[in-house]
Formats: sequence, C-alpha cells, structure tokens
Amino acid sequence: MIKSRAAVAFAPNQPLQIVEVDVAPPKAGEVLVRIVATGVCHTDAYTLSGEDSEGVFPCILGHEGGGIVEAVGEGVTSLAVGDHVIPLYTAECRQCKFCTSGKTNLCQAVRATQGKGLMPDGTTRFSYNGQPIYHYMGCSTFSEYTVLPEISLAKIPQEAPLEKVCLLGCGVTTGIGAVLNTAKVTEGSTVAIFGLGGIGLAAIIGAKMAKAGRIIAIDINPAKFAIATELGATDLVNPNDFDKPIQDVIVEMTDGGVDYSFECVGNVKLMRAALECCHKGWGESTIIGVAGAGQEISTRPFQLVTGRVWRGSAFGGVKGRTELPGYVEKAQKGEIPLDTFITHNLPLDEINQAFDLMHEGKSIRTVIHF
Amino acid sequence: MIKSRAAVAFAPNQPLQIVEVDVAPPKAGEVLVRIVATGVCHTDAYTLSGEDSEGVFPCILGHEGGGIVEAVGEGVTSLAVGDHVIPLYTAECRQCKFCTSGKTNLCQAVRATQGKGLMPDGTTRFSYNGQPIYHYMGCSTFSEYTVLPEISLAKIPQEAPLEKVCLLGCGVTTGIGAVLNTAKVTEGSTVAIFGLGGIGLAAIIGAKMAKAGRIIAIDINPAKFAIATELGATDLVNPNDFDKPIQDVIVEMTDGGVDYSFECVGNVKLMRAALECCHKGWGESTIIGVAGAGQEISTRPFQLVTGRVWRGSAFGGVKGRTELPGYVEKAQKGEIPLDTFITHNLPLDEINQAFDLMHEGKSIRTVIHF
Repeated sequence: MIKSRAAVAFAPNQPLQIVEVDVAPPKAGEVLVRIVATGVCHTDAYTLSGEDSEGVFPCILGHEGGGIVEAVGEGVTSLAVGDHVIPLYTAECRQCKFCTSGKTNLCQAVRATQGKGLMPDGTTRFSYNGQPIYHYMGCSTFSEYTVLPEISLAKIPQEAPLEKVCLLGCGVTTGIGAVLNTAKVTEGSTVAIFGLGGIGLAAIIGAKMAKAGRIIAIDINPAKFAIATELGATDLVNPNDFDKPIQDVIVEMTDGGVDYSFECVGNVKLMRAALECCHKGWGESTIIGVAGAGQEISTRPFQLVTGRVWRGSAFGGVKGRTELPGYVEKAQKGEIPLDTFITHNLPLDEINQAFDLMHEGKSIRTVIHF
Repeated sequence: MIKSRAAVAFAPNQPLQIVEVDVAPPKAGEVLVRIVATGVCHTDAYTLSGEDSEGVFPCILGHEGGGIVEAVGEGVTSLAVGDHVIPLYTAECRQCKFCTSGKTNLCQAVRATQGKGLMPDGTTRFSYNGQPIYHYMGCSTFSEYTVLPEISLAKIPQEAPLEKVCLLGCGVTTGIGAVLNTAKVTEGSTVAIFGLGGIGLAAIIGAKMAKAGRIIAIDINPAKFAIATELGATDLVNPNDFDKPIQDVIVEMTDGGVDYSFECVGNVKLMRAALECCHKGWGESTIIGVAGAGQEISTRPFQLVTGRVWRGSAFGGVKGRTELPGYVEKAQKGEIPLDTFITHNLPLDEINQAFDLMHEGKSIRTVIHF
C-alpha cells in the first residue's frame, strides 16, 4: 500500500478534494504508474456533474495523463519499471473479437468492470480511510499514483515531454483520429467542424493533415476563431450571425453541402445539423461529442436514403498501444502543435480552477502538474 | 398526338380509371416508349394514398416497366426505334456533378421537374379531354405509351422478356443493389433483412450473391418465410413470437449483433431496430424503405459512437443506363430468379386488383400486361 496525493470526487457536483489516498500494489496483469501530468477534459466535468449514468462515487477522475511505470504485477511482459506511458481508456488486448476484427478500436476485454469503476478482478486499488474509492474510465489520472491493466497503457518514447503528450490520451487524438481513421477525409474535400473545443480544434489539425481543400470551423464563441484559423480553418461561421438553420447556411456556402462533417460538442441538435449540412449523394457525418444521458438524435430517413452517411467515433478509432506512439512522434516533429492546446498549467492543488476555466470557456486545456 | 390506354389516378385514394389519354410526341432529347408490361410497387400505392408530398394529381402512376422505343425526339443518339428499354426513375445523364462524382447514382439532371410531375421543359406530354395529366417518377408506366427523357432509359438486350425484366426497374434492383453496391456485404458476414416484400426478398438474393454466411429474414407475416428460405435465408424471425424488442432478439442470436442490416419496409421504428441490432464496432445498417411524410428516425448517439454506421440506399445505388443491362443479363442466366417474384399477372383493365392483392399481403409482384 502506498500513499498518493489525489483529487477525489466524493460526490457529484461538488469540488474535488485533494487528499492522500491509499493505493494497493498492482495485481497480476496490472501496472502501477506515477502520473507526471494530466489534462482536464469535458468528460471529467460531465461525470462530475452527476449526469453520466456510469459515474460511480466516490471516485478519482482524470483520463488524459502521462506517467512513468513504477511497478508491474505478475505476468506483465510488455512494460517495465521506468517506461513512459499514456493511460488508455480504450484498452487494446489484441486478443478479443473486437481487437482481432481489424474493424474497430473498441476492445472489450476490460469494458464491463471499467464501466463500474473497478479493475478487471472486480475490486478497486484506491481507498481513503479504509473506504473504497472507485476508478474512472480505467485511468484515474487525477492521482499521483494509479493502477491500470497492462493492456490499458501505451508505451511511448522517453524523450517526449509527458506534460504535453498527456493530451494525446484523449481529446487531441480523438479529434485527429476521427478525421483520419474514422471518416478517412480525402485530399481536396470540404469539411465542416462543429464546436471548437479541444476535440474540434484537433479535428481541424486532422483535416489539415488530410489535405482537405476547405475547412469550415463553426462555433458560437468567436473567441475561438483566431486559433481555428492558426490551425488551418479556411472559413469561420458563427451560427448566431444567421436567422436560418446552420445546416442551410453551410449547404448554401458550399454549393450543396460538405463532403465530411464532425460534431465535437455533444449536442444532439448540432449532430442533426452536422448530418444535414452534408452533400446529397456522398456526405458523411461523424459524431465525436458525447451527448447527455438519454438524449437522442433524429432526422428524416430521406437524409440517409439520398446518400448521406451517419457514423461515430470513439478515441478517434485509434488503437492505443499500436497507434499512439505514432501520434507522439508526430507531436515531437511538430506536426501536432500541442502547445496551442495548453492554455493553462496548474498544480494539482488548484485542479478545481481548471474546471472553472473550462466552464467559463476560457481554456482549451489546462494541464495539471503533480 | 397519339391515343394511349392508361390507368389514370384522377384523385388520391380512389381507384385508377382506365381511359384513353392523349400522348404528345417526344420533344428534343425525349423518347416515346410503348410499355409492354409493368410491375405494381408499394411506392405507387403510397403516392395513390395521398401521403406522398410529391404526389400531383391527376397523374399516371407506375415506374417498374419494360417497353419498346416507338419514336425518338430531336438529338436523341443513344436509342433508336425498336430498342428494348427499362424506364429509370433515377436518370443517368453522365454529365452532372453527381454522375461524374463516382460516388452516387443520384443524377440530378431532371430531378426538379420530375418531382413536380413534369418533363424537363416544365410541361406534360399527357392529357385527357384537353386537361393535362401529370407524369410520375419520370416514368408513368401505367400507360401503353409514355414519354421519357433519353437519359431516363436503360437499353437492354432484345431477347430479355420485358414482362419479367420490368421488375428490374425498381424493387428487385433496389434490394440487390443495396446489398452489393451500398452496403458492400462481405463474404461470410451475418446479415439481417427486415421486411420480406419484393425489396426484402431481393436483398436476400443480394446477400446470397455476396456469399453472406448467415441471412436472417424478419417479418411479422410467416407466410413469407417459405419463399425467403427458397431464396437463401438461413434464419427466420417473427417479431410477434417474442416479448422483447426485436433488436435484442437479433443481438442475442448473433452473439453481439449482425454485420449488416437492411430496412425494407419504410417503418421508422423498424429502421431504429435495424440499426440497433448491428454489432458494436462495425455493424452497418442501410435504410431502403421509404417512410411516411414527416416521419423521423431516432436513436441514442452512443449507438453510432460505438461504431455502428447508418446509411441509406436509393435504387440500390445502381446507375441505371450503365449497370441495369448487367442485371438483365444476370436474370437471363437465372442468377436473379424473377419468376419467384411474379405471383400474379393481370391485364391493364384489372390493375386495381393488383393494389388490392398488395394491400392484403397476397402478392409479391403483380405484373400488368398491356
């Protein structure tokens, strides 16, 4: 049992509390990781709000981290003490039906227990004053020390700065991967990106990498437009500037609609707009944002019968252990400008401020340093 | 002006009337066709019901025909008198943005006027007692003589029996094409087909052609099961035999869901079931059925974010002038068993009986002979 400083969510909708928790040693197939830095993502805030049906309290949130292997459990072969790693909320066992399908990154090996805030053996490694604290998304990176399954860790080069590449653990990879892996945007195509938070901005980077001919960035907060342009957006649209539905605006400005669209907010009305701004005959819309519990998308089936395609993406369709090292390399080469995303840096003690900045729309990403 | 026997829909929801209409000669780029036989499709019944927002009365319905070129207008080069043809409700101009995209069969060259029941010049070739009669889906095959744009006719081999291959003008091609062209079903995959009317049965043929490993046929009318099995269905499911949602039944019997599903009814609730019975990570659902005006599909976005894909298909994604001759050849070789679809043959005078048979679920297709 080791002591670890952690930001604990004791109950929904209350500030995190910085306390010292106990962390049990890694069991067979598990790894103890010292987190060096972690991003704070909207999904953490969503679960903290109490609206996430999978949220279990008390828990340690955080899923966008970078760390160093401190100890390995029995049978762990792919990682050793001292390895630099990025925790994966989407594991990659390389053995299940999903991993071997060649069609998806949605490994299900640890999915059932992960969704309950538990390790694969059905127990938790965290406790506080003898009471169990639950895991979160299989990562719990808001703790200096955390335990993960071996298959939930991507080994990355030692020279990559963990306080930056931690962002590849979620938002940045999700946005880029949705464009490159899920939608497979083609050179010269027209792309619309709804929502310019971390994922939307990353989607712009992805569209630029794919050599899209036109990248339309859409947000109701014009403060996001400068950075969108810096990253490669060619057109900026604020839906509040128009009296008509935003899909009609986009269809008009593109002579019939876009080739690809991406919803990066989690708003079901915007998901519909993103589909309906696609070009008849071939436009494809990808949902990346996570909608509130119980919310539904809808449209007229005619939209699909006339050739539009509706799909979604989780973690950008990226297989973490296999593909994430390549993303780190791209960041190292400057092809993924992580610095642009990091608007704030804070010590763990001030983590609640990161949530405030996010809610106020003032940050893209705050990185928490341990 | 020539005289033509035709079944005219003078008003919604009333029997067709067999009268002699006047047909004006083909203008530039148009072709006069003598219809030899025509199928009666659910879409004809849908428009006759008055629910089709594009329905214009009085009109001559019918869009599943086979005929012989009787005269050609100025500038027509690809067809000559005596050619055998199948009318196309989805034209193929080979010049518009859609035709040249390589991504869709939805040629838009004559779409705007066709939707208004008019020829491309904005007028109609049919009249009765001096009053204009509108065209329907650019075809109007319930008339012994009809006029179509040159680009709305597929030339087929003379030796193909028009009273059979007329069915390739809509339902049979739609079902097979949705499987082969739109979904691109792969060998060994598991397929679910919702609704065993003409299109659903054709989709079974398509799945068999694609060498699907398992073909699950779903209908609330068990009378359809014998023919489904004859065409290649491996599993038969009647939703009325179960207390739980049909998507749950299918997911259980397939260990997680199907690789491909097809909605062949036009029921928005069934469209949702068809999507949700798809396998997490890769299942793709294709909507073929046409829903009632104003109806919408809906689902939780999580269904898409976890890897399912929702798409649609019109005329099976088939480019009529280019691909339909190949379908006719396949029918000639016995690869498409058209005889299985033709449950009834009637003369034009008895066409209203074809609608009755369809509404009573007693026919797959009735072919009307002129």
